Amino acid sequence: MHIRILVTGGTFDKEYDELTGRLYFRDTHVPEMLSRGRCRLEVSVETVAMIDSLEMDERGRTTIVERARASVERAIVVTHGTDTMVQTAAALAYARQTSKTIVLTGTMVPYAFGSSDGLFNLGSALSFVQVLPPGVYVAMNGQHFNWNAVRKNTASGVFEAVEG
Amino acid sequence: MHIRILVTGGTFDKEYDELTGRLYFRDTHVPEMLSRGRCRLEVSVETVAMIDSLEMDERGRTTIVERARASVERAIVVTHGTDTMVQTAAALAYARQTSKTIVLTGTMVPYAFGSSDGLFNLGSALSFVQVLPPGVYVAMNGQHFNWNAVRKNTASGVFEAVEG
Amino acid sequence: MHIRILVTGGTFDKEYDELTGRLYFRDTHVPEMLSRGRCRLEVSVETVAMIDSLEMDERGRTTIVERARASVERAIVVTHGTDTMVQTAAALAYARQTSKTIVLTGTMVPYAFGSSDGLFNLGSALSFVQVLPPGVYVAMNGQHFNWNAVRKNTASGVFEAVEG
Amino acid sequence: MHIRILVTGGTFDKEYDELTGRLYFRDTHVPEMLSRGRCRLEVSVETVAMIDSLEMDERGRTTIVERARASVERAIVVTHGTDTMVQTAAALAYARQTSKTIVLTGTMVPYAFGSSDGLFNLGSALSFVQVLPPGVYVAMNGQHFNWNAVRKNTASGVFEAVEG
Repeated sequence: MHIRILVTGGTFDKEYDELTGRLYFRDTHVPEMLSRGRCRLEVSVETVAMIDSLEMDERGRTTIVERARASVERAIVVTHGTDTMVQTAAALAYARQTSKTIVLTGTMVPYAFGSSDGLFNLGSALSFVQVLPPGVYVAMNGQHFNWNAVRKNTASGVFEAVEG
Repeated sequence: MHIRILVTGGTFDKEYDELTGRLYFRDTHVPEMLSRGRCRLEVSVETVAMIDSLEMDERGRTTIVERARASVERAIVVTHGTDTMVQTAAALAYARQTSKTIVLTGTMVPYAFGSSDGLFNLGSALSFVQVLPPGVYVAMNGQHFNWNAVRKNTASGVFEAVEG
Repeated sequence: MHIRILVTGGTFDKEYDELTGRLYFRDTHVPEMLSRGRCRLEVSVETVAMIDSLEMDERGRTTIVERARASVERAIVVTHGTDTMVQTAAALAYARQTSKTIVLTGTMVPYAFGSSDGLFNLGSALSFVQVLPPGVYVAMNGQHFNWNAVRKNTASGVFEAVEG
Repeated sequence: MHIRILVTGGTFDKEYDELTGRLYFRDTHVPEMLSRGRCRLEVSVETVAMIDSLEMDERGRTTIVERARASVERAIVVTHGTDTMVQTAAALAYARQTSKTIVLTGTMVPYAFGSSDGLFNLGSALSFVQVLPPGVYVAMNGQHFNWNAVRKNTASGVFEAVEG
């Protein structure tokens, strides 16, 4: 099974800029994470954007949808900031890629921090994408949700089920 | 969905003893790993053993089988050393717990090391166990294998498919 | 020898806020760092401020000077943001605590990040403070400088000697 | 000031062998540690041995003494396993390099572990070596000791003063 990972940035890829003291984006950490996970899946990593998901707009979502449509792999993982992950999931669902399994995932803490949840979530998303039927899903907190049955609880930072 | 994690030790839980300079086992790191992964699954963690899997014998495997049989949860993850993981998977398969999905996982590098694959594998195993049909599986390197279709390549450290 | 550590925040103590995605201050990491360094010095840790050094003003510096003056220990380490560390060093020098050795130190990357220089710098500052004669010093990059013979090169992030 | 670092292995440089599950030595981590500490000292790193200090014998100590004697730098840090560090310090002292300051240091936990004290100790040793008068010292736990006034307490793992 071949899997495509569409990287869009998000907390996964935030780094600390020593000179300004601010968080910023440079390159994605996904290849390093796959290496650390000793991942042996056939994976193609494609960087679509490198932004905070609060900056993700209609144009950005259109690009993600186009890249998902162009993917020859039928299993797609999208790394994405958590704040607007559900909106991007909806955009992907509206695009009706009915033969594909698409799983969005993100992190609460940047991978570059010692305490990041990133490796757990990437392992989770890559596993769900191999076995779930075609559809668009969010994988966070060890769980998976249909794209229309989930929201981020902004008070707790946890993704939770809502009636789809 | 409720999940039971049966902890048996393995590289997951190896620690460094400052006084002797040797690796040893104390308590499992699994609860800390679940916390770091912001896992929100209903999980019960049960320590069955705390040993290197080279020391796992028939008696130890019998105990694991018994604990799996006694589990009220139908989704079970077993953390296990990689060297004899496949044998324990076979023991679980022979026990014909036909209504349960059992996923064994492990790590190549102890969780206490900065470079561990543990978090990736735990996220992977917890995801597979939720969606795979009943059976006994090994989840390593981002992949899953039927218990009778996998071996550890001891030269490369990678789990690979064999004809089941 | 007893040592007092005056904590003022700075990059040392920046943490990542999962809910807002921003860096912030909570508690100091200095005790955890001393523990990890297996430090056996007699150390008293006192939090004077918990701020970015760009926010350090005259009032804040006056408080630091007062706390240094009140210290019964003659060896004092001040943890401080790097941007205005040299100004605070000057304020301490003008206060003419002529019997005390005062060493300021900081970090370029927060301790909570895997790649932090914090532990190196704290080990360095605690060592210099034990053996340097009374005076006010900056300890960064493995080096020590007299308070009036150093500046932070804001382009490179490195502390370098200037004519005192 | 130029500093020579003589690397002899010890816990500093222990790594985890994924295939055998054992700790072993490969290359020294010292250059990576200097880089992480943003060290700007003029440092030459020379690997003299790469062994557990329990395996350090007379021949090995003779080599260290010779390398210290050959060093054009008058400030020398020796990284060394903790178990026999004091013996090697004595060998260096007997060699009467009276114009040189030699500081031995080590770690309780390998640098490759998340919880290592290595960076703290290296920062400490590099600082002491710049300011202590000629002599042979052990720097551990944030403290420094004359070579003939220290022992490792094997029960606690801590270096402590003894009458010299």
